[in-house]
Amino acid sequence: MHRGGSLLSPTIAYETWGTLNHERDNAVLIFTGMSPSAHAASSTLDPASGWWEEIIGPGRPIDTHRYYVICVNSLGSCFGSTGPASIDPRTGELYRLTFPVLSLEDVARGGYEVVKHLGVKRLKATVGPSMGGMTALAFEIMFPGLSEGFVSMSSGPRSLPFSIALRSLQREIIRKDPEWRNGNYPRDSVPLTGMRLARKLGMITYRSAEEWRLRFGRERAATTDMNGDQFGQVFEIEAYLEHHANKFTGQFDPNCYLYLSRASDLFDIAEHGSSVEAGLAQVRVKRAMIIGVQTDFLFPIYQQRELAEGLEAPGREVEFHALASLQGHDSFLVDMDRYRPLIASFFA
Amino acid sequence: MHRGGSLLSPTIAYETWGTLNHERDNAVLIFTGMSPSAHAASSTLDPASGWWEEIIGPGRPIDTHRYYVICVNSLGSCFGSTGPASIDPRTGELYRLTFPVLSLEDVARGGYEVVKHLGVKRLKATVGPSMGGMTALAFEIMFPGLSEGFVSMSSGPRSLPFSIALRSLQREIIRKDPEWRNGNYPRDSVPLTGMRLARKLGMITYRSAEEWRLRFGRERAATTDMNGDQFGQVFEIEAYLEHHANKFTGQFDPNCYLYLSRASDLFDIAEHGSSVEAGLAQVRVKRAMIIGVQTDFLFPIYQQRELAEGLEAPGREVEFHALASLQGHDSFLVDMDRYRPLIASFFA
Repeated sequence: MHRGGSLLSPTIAYETWGTLNHERDNAVLIFTGMSPSAHAASSTLDPASGWWEEIIGPGRPIDTHRYYVICVNSLGSCFGSTGPASIDPRTGELYRLTFPVLSLEDVARGGYEVVKHLGVKRLKATVGPSMGGMTALAFEIMFPGLSEGFVSMSSGPRSLPFSIALRSLQREIIRKDPEWRNGNYPRDSVPLTGMRLARKLGMITYRSAEEWRLRFGRERAATTDMNGDQFGQVFEIEAYLEHHANKFTGQFDPNCYLYLSRASDLFDIAEHGSSVEAGLAQVRVKRAMIIGVQTDFLFPIYQQRELAEGLEAPGREVEFHALASLQGHDSFLVDMDRYRPLIASFFA
Repeated sequence: MHRGGSLLSPTIAYETWGTLNHERDNAVLIFTGMSPSAHAASSTLDPASGWWEEIIGPGRPIDTHRYYVICVNSLGSCFGSTGPASIDPRTGELYRLTFPVLSLEDVARGGYEVVKHLGVKRLKATVGPSMGGMTALAFEIMFPGLSEGFVSMSSGPRSLPFSIALRSLQREIIRKDPEWRNGNYPRDSVPLTGMRLARKLGMITYRSAEEWRLRFGRERAATTDMNGDQFGQVFEIEAYLEHHANKFTGQFDPNCYLYLSRASDLFDIAEHGSSVEAGLAQVRVKRAMIIGVQTDFLFPIYQQRELAEGLEAPGREVEFHALASLQGHDSFLVDMDRYRPLIASFFA
């Protein structure tokens, strides 16, 4: 592991779409944000819609007629890859907090092992939104020359104190739930309240104030749940947060959430050089596309610009897009009318 | 009370500085943000520094040689005024959640009763930051003609869903602390964890991402408190939040916090007319100054502009200032180099 410790025979879950060509050089490697699984798009094996369904598929912006698309579930996550919720083969017990400190460099290495295992010779591009963008950036520095292109969305070269503060608070909310039990909660009794509250905080920062003003305004909730006091759901925005937080909770393992969240804090490309610039100077791709959104709280637009400018090099084509999307950090998941043409053009 | 219910013989705590003149028309009435007391500045009775020490005093921007300055502790608060932590004289028990729904209109009326009690005939201005700005606005509509001027800072004509969402989450964090006990916590065992976490969320939104980037960057904490796991304080920003949240907690009564927080959500000047514009059209002051900050998360700068534009009327002087302060919503407390001259010029 990047910051010490080791795992015995870890598993990395992945999904693929399309076919690896004879030259083994048409692969696209996708890293995810903090919480999604490797199921980025539907397939015959799993027809459920994926988290980037409109982008990946035959005739879609990342066209599976042309590309062999790979998406990995992050090391440390709980959707098939080894993480704190997995059994440590050395002890026969769940790792829980004995899992070593997780870094995005470890997540990147997980992706590399999958690429190697699949016999890919060269990647057309690595692609990542949010935490996945930082992971893809780590990948580019750790495995130079393997990838021709790099696409970063709503991401940056390092985590800044504002997003560290938000994630730190989310983690503390989970850790202060008595049901967390210092990480030793039973599988059937996870700290649901802490997870629900942390998720609400996430949702508040994943979108934008302007989107909510237009969507919800000061509308009152149709059904109010006052829980015997006046502090229940009065406004539509409160009902919306409650509904979506409940959907998330129960799917994601709390300890995995803590590890991936801290791994995001720890990421700093400057650790791969003496500065952000020196770190970025080690990237070897031929083409890069950096997409940011003006309403993003977590990775402000100037970080996207810093990333794009830091990647500029003789003979390299770097595109920088500052989108006016209203949906904030999560725009890459929802503002498809803006993302579809950009991704399609990069992969055309 | 504005939304039903009543209080028997409520108390409104206040402090004053300077002397009411013979014409009884040199008073300035200050409403506070959600958590401060009426102690806006030091005095001979209480020499401790107040929350607006640099603004109020002899020779200061609100010059107590000229003005009779009054600051009230909000109804519903816990620094002398009647609130959920007070004893209901009708039952001999603490109000707790039997306190009626609180509105900023009630807080405004509390200020009015103080003004009347002090024999003030006419106010030079009402002044309020944040929640206090909305309270002062309510005051102007409820008691038209009493005040010549109106100064709003980091405030707006209504609460928007983004700030409602944040406050709703803060309230839920407190209410989900088992120590809250549905509002019936003993006086010596308040829900400290919930209050601490809610305060951290407040602090994250009271300042700005840019300020923290410049102040803390990715500095590591001098003393790390890992609490036996890797999720304790690693970064300086985490230690900063912990330090300041601990300072706040214990001072503020949790139920009072819930009531004042919800009162802020509920405020909408449009309830005093058919729209924000119609509500604002009822204000009768001769002069108004609206100060907003470009980095404010809770009351974005366009709300300040909306407020200023809505107050424009023939023969009225309306100043609008969009400050470049880095300190976000809290700038009125800290960016004194920008605020001092503006307030001084208004009161000159």
